[in-house]
Amino acid sequence: MCGIFGIINAADAARKTYYGLHALQHRGQESAGIVTTAYDAARKRAIMPAIRNFGLVTDVFRDDAVFQHKLAGDMAIGHNRYSTSGSSTNAANIQPFVVHYRNGNLAIAHNGNLSNATQLRQLFDLNGTLFQTTSDTEVILHLIAQSRQFRQRDQILDAVSQVEGAFSLILMTDDKLIAVRDPHGFRPLMLGRIDEAHNQGKPAWCVASESCAFDLLGATYVREIQPGEMLVMEKEACETGNFESYLLKPTSQTAQCIFEYVYFSRPDSRIFGEMVDKVRRKFGKTLAHEAPAPFDSKGKRTIVIPVPDSSNTSAMGYATELNKIYCHEGERDHFRFEFGLIRNHYVGRTFISPGQNARELKVRLKFNTVEGVLKDRIVVMVDDSIVRGTTCRQLVKMVREAGAREVHFRVTSPPVISPCYYGMDFPTPDELFANQFEDIDGMAAWLGVDSLAYLSEEGLLEAVRETNSIPPNYCTACFTNKYPVPVQVPKETEKEAFEFV
Amino acid sequence: MCGIFGIINAADAARKTYYGLHALQHRGQESAGIVTTAYDAARKRAIMPAIRNFGLVTDVFRDDAVFQHKLAGDMAIGHNRYSTSGSSTNAANIQPFVVHYRNGNLAIAHNGNLSNATQLRQLFDLNGTLFQTTSDTEVILHLIAQSRQFRQRDQILDAVSQVEGAFSLILMTDDKLIAVRDPHGFRPLMLGRIDEAHNQGKPAWCVASESCAFDLLGATYVREIQPGEMLVMEKEACETGNFESYLLKPTSQTAQCIFEYVYFSRPDSRIFGEMVDKVRRKFGKTLAHEAPAPFDSKGKRTIVIPVPDSSNTSAMGYATELNKIYCHEGERDHFRFEFGLIRNHYVGRTFISPGQNARELKVRLKFNTVEGVLKDRIVVMVDDSIVRGTTCRQLVKMVREAGAREVHFRVTSPPVISPCYYGMDFPTPDELFANQFEDIDGMAAWLGVDSLAYLSEEGLLEAVRETNSIPPNYCTACFTNKYPVPVQVPKETEKEAFEFV
Amino acid sequence: MCGIFGIINAADAARKTYYGLHALQHRGQESAGIVTTAYDAARKRAIMPAIRNFGLVTDVFRDDAVFQHKLAGDMAIGHNRYSTSGSSTNAANIQPFVVHYRNGNLAIAHNGNLSNATQLRQLFDLNGTLFQTTSDTEVILHLIAQSRQFRQRDQILDAVSQVEGAFSLILMTDDKLIAVRDPHGFRPLMLGRIDEAHNQGKPAWCVASESCAFDLLGATYVREIQPGEMLVMEKEACETGNFESYLLKPTSQTAQCIFEYVYFSRPDSRIFGEMVDKVRRKFGKTLAHEAPAPFDSKGKRTIVIPVPDSSNTSAMGYATELNKIYCHEGERDHFRFEFGLIRNHYVGRTFISPGQNARELKVRLKFNTVEGVLKDRIVVMVDDSIVRGTTCRQLVKMVREAGAREVHFRVTSPPVISPCYYGMDFPTPDELFANQFEDIDGMAAWLGVDSLAYLSEEGLLEAVRETNSIPPNYCTACFTNKYPVPVQVPKETEKEAFEFV
Amino acid sequence: MCGIFGIINAADAARKTYYGLHALQHRGQESAGIVTTAYDAARKRAIMPAIRNFGLVTDVFRDDAVFQHKLAGDMAIGHNRYSTSGSSTNAANIQPFVVHYRNGNLAIAHNGNLSNATQLRQLFDLNGTLFQTTSDTEVILHLIAQSRQFRQRDQILDAVSQVEGAFSLILMTDDKLIAVRDPHGFRPLMLGRIDEAHNQGKPAWCVASESCAFDLLGATYVREIQPGEMLVMEKEACETGNFESYLLKPTSQTAQCIFEYVYFSRPDSRIFGEMVDKVRRKFGKTLAHEAPAPFDSKGKRTIVIPVPDSSNTSAMGYATELNKIYCHEGERDHFRFEFGLIRNHYVGRTFISPGQNARELKVRLKFNTVEGVLKDRIVVMVDDSIVRGTTCRQLVKMVREAGAREVHFRVTSPPVISPCYYGMDFPTPDELFANQFEDIDGMAAWLGVDSLAYLSEEGLLEAVRETNSIPPNYCTACFTNKYPVPVQVPKETEKEAFEFV
Repeated sequence: MCGIFGIINAADAARKTYYGLHALQHRGQESAGIVTTAYDAARKRAIMPAIRNFGLVTDVFRDDAVFQHKLAGDMAIGHNRYSTSGSSTNAANIQPFVVHYRNGNLAIAHNGNLSNATQLRQLFDLNGTLFQTTSDTEVILHLIAQSRQFRQRDQILDAVSQVEGAFSLILMTDDKLIAVRDPHGFRPLMLGRIDEAHNQGKPAWCVASESCAFDLLGATYVREIQPGEMLVMEKEACETGNFESYLLKPTSQTAQCIFEYVYFSRPDSRIFGEMVDKVRRKFGKTLAHEAPAPFDSKGKRTIVIPVPDSSNTSAMGYATELNKIYCHEGERDHFRFEFGLIRNHYVGRTFISPGQNARELKVRLKFNTVEGVLKDRIVVMVDDSIVRGTTCRQLVKMVREAGAREVHFRVTSPPVISPCYYGMDFPTPDELFANQFEDIDGMAAWLGVDSLAYLSEEGLLEAVRETNSIPPNYCTACFTNKYPVPVQVPKETEKEAFEFV
Repeated sequence: MCGIFGIINAADAARKTYYGLHALQHRGQESAGIVTTAYDAARKRAIMPAIRNFGLVTDVFRDDAVFQHKLAGDMAIGHNRYSTSGSSTNAANIQPFVVHYRNGNLAIAHNGNLSNATQLRQLFDLNGTLFQTTSDTEVILHLIAQSRQFRQRDQILDAVSQVEGAFSLILMTDDKLIAVRDPHGFRPLMLGRIDEAHNQGKPAWCVASESCAFDLLGATYVREIQPGEMLVMEKEACETGNFESYLLKPTSQTAQCIFEYVYFSRPDSRIFGEMVDKVRRKFGKTLAHEAPAPFDSKGKRTIVIPVPDSSNTSAMGYATELNKIYCHEGERDHFRFEFGLIRNHYVGRTFISPGQNARELKVRLKFNTVEGVLKDRIVVMVDDSIVRGTTCRQLVKMVREAGAREVHFRVTSPPVISPCYYGMDFPTPDELFANQFEDIDGMAAWLGVDSLAYLSEEGLLEAVRETNSIPPNYCTACFTNKYPVPVQVPKETEKEAFEFV
Repeated sequence: MCGIFGIINAADAARKTYYGLHALQHRGQESAGIVTTAYDAARKRAIMPAIRNFGLVTDVFRDDAVFQHKLAGDMAIGHNRYSTSGSSTNAANIQPFVVHYRNGNLAIAHNGNLSNATQLRQLFDLNGTLFQTTSDTEVILHLIAQSRQFRQRDQILDAVSQVEGAFSLILMTDDKLIAVRDPHGFRPLMLGRIDEAHNQGKPAWCVASESCAFDLLGATYVREIQPGEMLVMEKEACETGNFESYLLKPTSQTAQCIFEYVYFSRPDSRIFGEMVDKVRRKFGKTLAHEAPAPFDSKGKRTIVIPVPDSSNTSAMGYATELNKIYCHEGERDHFRFEFGLIRNHYVGRTFISPGQNARELKVRLKFNTVEGVLKDRIVVMVDDSIVRGTTCRQLVKMVREAGAREVHFRVTSPPVISPCYYGMDFPTPDELFANQFEDIDGMAAWLGVDSLAYLSEEGLLEAVRETNSIPPNYCTACFTNKYPVPVQVPKETEKEAFEFV
Repeated sequence: MCGIFGIINAADAARKTYYGLHALQHRGQESAGIVTTAYDAARKRAIMPAIRNFGLVTDVFRDDAVFQHKLAGDMAIGHNRYSTSGSSTNAANIQPFVVHYRNGNLAIAHNGNLSNATQLRQLFDLNGTLFQTTSDTEVILHLIAQSRQFRQRDQILDAVSQVEGAFSLILMTDDKLIAVRDPHGFRPLMLGRIDEAHNQGKPAWCVASESCAFDLLGATYVREIQPGEMLVMEKEACETGNFESYLLKPTSQTAQCIFEYVYFSRPDSRIFGEMVDKVRRKFGKTLAHEAPAPFDSKGKRTIVIPVPDSSNTSAMGYATELNKIYCHEGERDHFRFEFGLIRNHYVGRTFISPGQNARELKVRLKFNTVEGVLKDRIVVMVDDSIVRGTTCRQLVKMVREAGAREVHFRVTSPPVISPCYYGMDFPTPDELFANQFEDIDGMAAWLGVDSLAYLSEEGLLEAVRETNSIPPNYCTACFTNKYPVPVQVPKETEKEAFEFV
């Protein structure tokens, strides 16, 4: 997963990009980078200065002066990268990438995963093209540089028409910002406008993975970049926003990543045309109908607690709906939403020495129970998904130790059974929790809960459709094993090919 | 504010201290340090190796190997320091401090503020004692080193009897761990036990600012270090836990910091004998009686939202109690707890360029609204306290922009009107929000809210007493201007006196 | 200028390369790097681990452990780079370069300057090849990768046949070490053998810019790599040393850089078939005949002092020969070699604040006079060359201030009048001292000396020929403006084309 | 060994100190520091900003801006420290030290070794004084701070009167520069003047370990600080230079370190009233009489080579005098000074992996032979001293391998038989070369030379007296075992007592 951001015709473009990346920090914490356009007066040519490094945005950009000096300019793009195995030691993989070729400078930021990168790379290898990174994104750059088209936008169109899989891209040339979304529309990408007079009174325009970046900047959400759209943004058109838009080869139907709603995006973001918070709450409500929680026969209220923070909204929806369904006229609520788990947000990269209770410690570093809330109660824990199951199991154990009489577990999405090849970092099928058990009882027994229930696939899709005015199609491959684009399971991480430094 | 931790008779003492500091990270983010005891075989003497630096615990300790090697040993103390103005550039101020004097090595970690440090320092200055730090804690070390007592525990007792103000201390000698709490008991300090066989089957014992550190380590909470108690812990006594306990000169009554309950401590901690979560919830409930929120005449429920995360519990208590009070038999709830503000936990040290909307941006970096929850609603925002008011005002503006019809603000503590001289870092009286207005209407107008209400002083104390089985006395100076220990308002930060490096 | 070193079939190859680079440190102080061959068992493929950074060899390699671990293996190449304007901020330019392409890994270290790099690069630009560095060396890598030959050695032969100018190269493939010298033989490159049993008793073989690297390693000097030779060294042939040798397209005549003898190489090195010390001494002797120093009519001896350390040998030759020529039977020597200038070797990168006496200070930091040697004497200062003249002028002033009665200046090479385009870093023609004056008197007046004399071009060449058993042809372009290979005066430093990081 | 420098009433005092330390770099390469006086307007008090770190002066000061900003002011002192065992890891030991006490700020830079530091420290320990460093210099600071005198200069006089051993000190108070030299005058310290108008036209005055620092700054050498003198320099007196001078308790006779002449000081410095170059040359001349070199019966000249660079001057004196003595009227010289060993000045901190030829490699990294000079010759190697002998032995081996027919070794000082307790870093008696053999033949045999000769003690003293107009007394303890001040052989390095950071 990654977060990408781009802006054109903005005073202080790099600093705005810095704030944009800040809002998208949850999409990738391994590295961050910003590239701007500038003019090198001494050498009389356009350049693209860049600052990129490992770490959070606040780690990489510690000196405010860079925005006035090195990263000056009114156009910029930025990238947050997620930690994926292997590549994390190679600094050359930190995006945005910048190259200079016969048509000028070119920068690129990519969220997603190309499914035909390996084949394309083999072709390049045979013709003697040297690669510098192990990133699939570099393939796009070579396709552009070696394109037989003359105009830069045609070269880019040529290149993005040859790659397959998941790609939300922001490219920057010496005078344009270009946003591209793959025909399936796996990853979100949207357009915003900042009504701040710049460059003869024209507004600035920005592109981001999620709309929360717009809120931080005071930008207005305009629309989604459409699946299969390549939007070419030039300064001249900033006044009207009538940017040129090109269409990649169409696909039978879109396949937007439903897991963005389930877990990945921020609740205060609008993606795929709907607020994440609203969709996530609907998941909880639907689950309340499908898998209600038990009443406490002792007359106490049953306690519904989220695994904070990603499940807060869906747990709230679940609890509210339960009361709506089961509390008859004249009754007090039977269910109460509570904070039974406290999360420590200072976790960072804490090291854990390997050993028998390393896993337990890892969970304890992040969560603690609130005994006063849980003691002698029937507790329903709500989480958005279960991937490996180890954290859940430890949390259940802690909730029991805090005195819970019964522990029920509710998951506001279906069982995860397949890896994602479109940009999400899941473990192998064997490591997925749901694949390790015959049935739901086996799962519940291993987790140590009194009952376990998942949201059904139908419930999931229904929730999404109901909330969303224009129901698009979603990729549910991680829950269903039905991949919209054929995938080639990658072998080992490819070795760095080009490591000058 | 600071977090302190110490442990004796523990396998892997430094790593346990590392986890302890982790749990106490919210008490201080400026610097961290750990000191252990070891034996230098080459030089045939006891030593106290230390690792200390600016940054979070995870920044300072990045290499697991130090726990096996440099910080080996079965006794350790650690310290997290809060950022206070001025001193933050002087690395010599990072605790724990370690000295060697005629009775051996000595390490110290301090949470609090000495009220007679300046006078003591002047006396030392006159006799030619050279100081290395600007910290009031160093005074205690010179008092110990220059004491005319012979036994080390007598030297320490001599020293801590001469200092006044707020001090929860953990000292480490070559063979003892010593916990001290000032007679007023301003800052919390408590004892825990880890039932892990070490050193002929004896358990380990630990001392910490808050009990959440015990939970992380699987330690059992034993008791508070009493106000005015000096507990001397030796390995021999670890089996029974019958440690020698000395009494400092008694004070008329204790004065435990009530702001620890209001804001500072973690909700999952037990301090001053009671769970913070429970007290904080009670603040909300009491406020529900004192200052209820309005019904929505349009038939919708009034939305109660916390300013996350510190007000989550009190807002929950407030909303629940409102429903209990105002919802008659047979009615549905009129108030609903909701998440209307989302907090971004990646904020870190983000830089903001000065300018007109710097303050606004600062708040937007940390919080975003959830429009679907707030639109067309009567919204009650609940916060634990208002210090400068600028964040509140901006949050109110954002909640209005998200479409709230009315905005009411409730504070679960009284107005802050006086600075703290016992270890909390408040601004000057002039900068405090509550001191800038004639009355509550002026405050409400400036904040832009339809109504504003604080918890009364009586309500605050009542809540504390009700929940706490043995009602102790509290310091409420920040709300009442009644200081339990005479304070000398410090002039400018003192200059570093000794700066060899 | 640069220093290059390579070794095959050696235990501890990287550490030996480290020592080799150490001996060649005078050839380049800007950056250093070492690459070895290894096998990545986890990924079952050959790799080329590298360590490269800015700074001296001792700065880049501070941790001995890298030689046992990261840089293990029995084949290695290394590179020292000289500081040239502009490129010094781009870490991607630090050699050796390493790439992976369809035939495996490939590393390269280059000393020299390609004269047709710009044209080749333009061609590559047109076909869409992306460059990562601004170094002309990268062209060779793309020529190899895009060669239509199948065998790796043919690809390399293909590539080096297309480049022109000055290039002494060491390449490393997964199983071979390849040394190449351009047909003119501008830069030295020689073969050595280490009789240390390794790999079934075979000796190691090494290639270096200068023989002083062999002395440090206890290696035996075997022979020069011939101008136009490509020597392919394989482990199997290490026993006999019968390596395959290929011939590049022949050139009319060789053009070995005479400035290597004048200044650049170390006096204890053998290059182009002769000891530098011997040649340099002969320069002094010849100059004694061409431009003798005056007798002191006061009966004292005339003092001959070198500008240390590069002129020590030639000044000694000059003084000795003067006595031989002018001191008749029965006379005491009239001339005495002395140390009148002391050099401070700790200079490093000392900063000088700009201002009127910045230049003077710069010289004073490096040199001081010895008054007792110079006072009331006729002093003859001997230097190897004059490039800008500013240091000379300041030294003359200092020698006069120390009390010298007369100051005469002798240069053991002709006036430098043209820049070098084959790897030496001279200033532009306008900045060269000799081009700024009408005649020798003008030069002497500006320097402030009583007389000034240069070695003649004939004297220079005669000295080289006399000492060298097989007289080769030399490049004297810097003294004569006759360039053996047509040069294209480069415009501004080219911008980095590819800057992923 | 250390180098110290101080300056008063100078524009840009810190930068001048930087250059001064540069000239004194040979006296200590482990760490460097500069302290200035400044006024903190915000806090209305005098301060002493400092920059100190491990490394060469050029490593510690890499940013020119510090001189304009942090280190502004017209008074400064600086220090270069030599690497002595143990303390090199403790940053607190880096000088100058700075403290603040009741009389203001105080900085100190020390060259030498106190012989009663341990006893004084024990006394301080008993009264509870906490130490921060392991340096004997800190004792002086506590003596000043705890003095019962009122005036600062009396406090300092009180303190320096209580310490014994070797100490050349420069102290800086908020308005004075104070130079002190112990009564024996072990280490040099001298006064210079810079005639540059500053502060109402008054000249600047500086104090330095060696006069070479004055040459670099264009300062005039004024005089030595006398043994037992404390010179108090105030700005008011800078016009005339009539500074107050105090006398420490007198000693029977001075004991200036003769090894400063033999090896330590730079040849271009004036110390103890005489040029080092002149004294060192005289050592060579005297040795020529005491221990001449053999003629070459084959008619070739005998070659005299120095071990560069410290022996250059004495070897030159030796060779010149030999010719004067042995070359009769009408004969050509029989002896020729030559460069037979080349020194690589880039050595730095090169690591050598332990093993059988580690020692050999260590020497080869620093020296190489010039075969053309040595082959078939009788060679006389001249060195200033032999400490451990291992380098000499290896050099002899290398000279033989280069073809020398005979190798004779001449040392221009007596055998080193005793350690120095006054600031020089010699090994223990057992490790000293001369103590390991019965007689000179044993030494010669182990070194592998045909003959070995040392300068006699009488010759050494005669040479010093002859050249120096006012013959002072010298400390020759390292050659004679006669210590002018009783020494207490220190046990192990003392542990850091105070390590706040």
